[in-house]
Amino acid sequence: MSAEIICIGTELLLGEILNSNSQYLAQALANLGIPHYYQTVVGDNPERIKAAIAIAIKRANILIFTGGLGPTPDDLTTATIADFFQTPLVENAAVIEDIAAKFAQTGREMTPSNRKQALIPVGAQVLDNPKGTAPGMIWHPQPDVLILTFPGVPSEMHAMWETVAVPYLKQQGWGKEIIYSRVLRFRGIGESALAEKVVDLFDLQNPTVAPYAGKGEVRLRVSCKAPSEAEAQQLMTPIIAKIQAIAGLDYFGQDEDTLASVVGDLLQQRGQTLAVAESCTAGGLGAMLTEQPGSSAYFWGGIIAYDNRVKERLLQIDPQLLQEHGAVSGTVAAAMAMGVKQQLGTDWGVSITGIAGPGGGTPEKPIGTVYIGIADPQNQVSHYHCQFGDRRGRALTRYLSACQGLDLLRRQLLNQGTSV
Amino acid sequence: MSAEIICIGTELLLGEILNSNSQYLAQALANLGIPHYYQTVVGDNPERIKAAIAIAIKRANILIFTGGLGPTPDDLTTATIADFFQTPLVENAAVIEDIAAKFAQTGREMTPSNRKQALIPVGAQVLDNPKGTAPGMIWHPQPDVLILTFPGVPSEMHAMWETVAVPYLKQQGWGKEIIYSRVLRFRGIGESALAEKVVDLFDLQNPTVAPYAGKGEVRLRVSCKAPSEAEAQQLMTPIIAKIQAIAGLDYFGQDEDTLASVVGDLLQQRGQTLAVAESCTAGGLGAMLTEQPGSSAYFWGGIIAYDNRVKERLLQIDPQLLQEHGAVSGTVAAAMAMGVKQQLGTDWGVSITGIAGPGGGTPEKPIGTVYIGIADPQNQVSHYHCQFGDRRGRALTRYLSACQGLDLLRRQLLNQGTSV
Repeated sequence: MSAEIICIGTELLLGEILNSNSQYLAQALANLGIPHYYQTVVGDNPERIKAAIAIAIKRANILIFTGGLGPTPDDLTTATIADFFQTPLVENAAVIEDIAAKFAQTGREMTPSNRKQALIPVGAQVLDNPKGTAPGMIWHPQPDVLILTFPGVPSEMHAMWETVAVPYLKQQGWGKEIIYSRVLRFRGIGESALAEKVVDLFDLQNPTVAPYAGKGEVRLRVSCKAPSEAEAQQLMTPIIAKIQAIAGLDYFGQDEDTLASVVGDLLQQRGQTLAVAESCTAGGLGAMLTEQPGSSAYFWGGIIAYDNRVKERLLQIDPQLLQEHGAVSGTVAAAMAMGVKQQLGTDWGVSITGIAGPGGGTPEKPIGTVYIGIADPQNQVSHYHCQFGDRRGRALTRYLSACQGLDLLRRQLLNQGTSV
Repeated sequence: MSAEIICIGTELLLGEILNSNSQYLAQALANLGIPHYYQTVVGDNPERIKAAIAIAIKRANILIFTGGLGPTPDDLTTATIADFFQTPLVENAAVIEDIAAKFAQTGREMTPSNRKQALIPVGAQVLDNPKGTAPGMIWHPQPDVLILTFPGVPSEMHAMWETVAVPYLKQQGWGKEIIYSRVLRFRGIGESALAEKVVDLFDLQNPTVAPYAGKGEVRLRVSCKAPSEAEAQQLMTPIIAKIQAIAGLDYFGQDEDTLASVVGDLLQQRGQTLAVAESCTAGGLGAMLTEQPGSSAYFWGGIIAYDNRVKERLLQIDPQLLQEHGAVSGTVAAAMAMGVKQQLGTDWGVSITGIAGPGGGTPEKPIGTVYIGIADPQNQVSHYHCQFGDRRGRALTRYLSACQGLDLLRRQLLNQGTSV
């Protein structure tokens, strides 16, 4: 028993989009212990899709399709699969109703071409799409073949996989001896430096420990094969505790934790509030903090001071300070943090000012120079200098700056917690 | 004559890395006018690699492999291809010399396992790797089959493709007729509604027109086969003009254009400036606007008014207004837009307030309710109601809200342009 991932879409053959769906599904199959040996990409062409199915059913039993479920004429996946297995399509009334309701909710009218999305092969089960109008299907066209179809839009596919496909596959007996994984997250230490600290653990067989680099963080994956989660926990807990002890403050969380969620939890525990003043990130730090539902409990808002006039007018920064030190300086970062804290009346203020590039660098302040300011509840202000270099590019430099702002705040919150 | 891309690596089957090589090669093939209809991913397993080759040579003539050229035992690509075509391997002296020189340059010593990388099938030509130690090969094992192999490391593969593979393939007669593509971008119309408006164009043969959905936008791809870019332009221009005329204001840009870049260009053309007031997006709109390098020319900053106290204090919103209409209302959106425009002294103010969920919905204002305000240079304020529904989730609702803010501003900028 094994699976094959078949991604359908001429846009993949033209290289217009990156095939992130196959990576997602590959991980998802591994999580359920379902082996898979091949992935196929094919365009929106019925004959070639059928040829790919003919090959796939010889080497796999579970065929997972993405793409080609939309309303337009080049969306042919469902009809072509049905045709391959010589099965007629029927219109599913529940799907029609669901699509109509979704259109009504956003005040649009369902078009005739959307009716096509309700056509599924006789005998197939609808795989509901909570996030879009294109449903998938679960179908056993032959006793030894299971077909699952998903739309190509990643967010829709992920939601459908989690809420419908995983329970279905578990019910089919998959996922019994499964691989449990924990992701431990670190910031403030490089991948190789962390790896050297925990190198002895890399020889373990069960659980295994493996490092990998993430965006703005370093991760260790602790994986364990076990028949139940409880048994996996028992095997993993001492290893995780050991890693946490070694890493100290550089460890910030695990699994779904983010720097923003960890900072949010710390603020909430202390009943404290936060405001931000952003220049080079221009809202990215505020947006990151509010990814957390419920963040309004501790995050009040901020000032996007992209232009110096806004730094002066709204953050009350002395124009002479700007002139003397430049907008990208520790002094101005400190003044921005204090300014936003005072203007908004919060306990903490965090500021970011820097040069994200591609222009604006000088010999003294090259591209990638960023200053972060933090004003604490006792009105103590500190500022930090970061140098991200010029090879990371504008988007990543801005992202890393926001991460660094959160991490510095996290460390102050934790230090404050112990000294109080 | 067509090509097939075969990516080899168990790490791809485990979902540990994203398969960016297939996207790169897909674009590279399109640029040379080489059609390709299938992509295959297979693990580091000789039997399965051979099975994939057996399938590929039945449906393609040019087989392009990536991965599995390194020095470790699980790097089997070259030996397996040679075995499939029953051809012995020979050690290539020039490669040994090249590897030794590269090791010497970085002060390291060549290990015995690196010798393996110099083994190539009798009759194959070495495809030199300027950036690494793993060379590829160019091989005609049969008169109708051409094999090209590349390492899996993207930067090495790209350099080898550009410097060796492209000249070789052009010499073989490819690249005379190339596929040119344009992506047209739309907002304010659904994929199916747009498709119905331009349905006649889907039957065209050259150029072809095909729709696909993106995040927060709809796209049409216009592709054209032609011997030169100038001739492609000539074929595509009238079709693109026709589509633009049909779509009207719903068309916003093409290729690398984004809503933020288009709005930025319009503001810059008019010499006007912008400020934002963000509640539910909490900085996301500001961050989106400043993804554009040089955005400081027109974007001054904004106020993240997540908490109502910030709306009152910094945006000067009458507390009674908040009480009467609620923070999520057209009236407050309008007041926020006007407030931020006045506080920052810009020509335009754009505001967003809404309920992104998962909490906070009420029967009157369910999750997904968003109001957008726009204050224009004449101090006229308008506000708009959007309903994104509750199925899109917090992150997507916030993203779409920021897109919608930009799109409404774009439309006002364009309308203003015509009425002046």
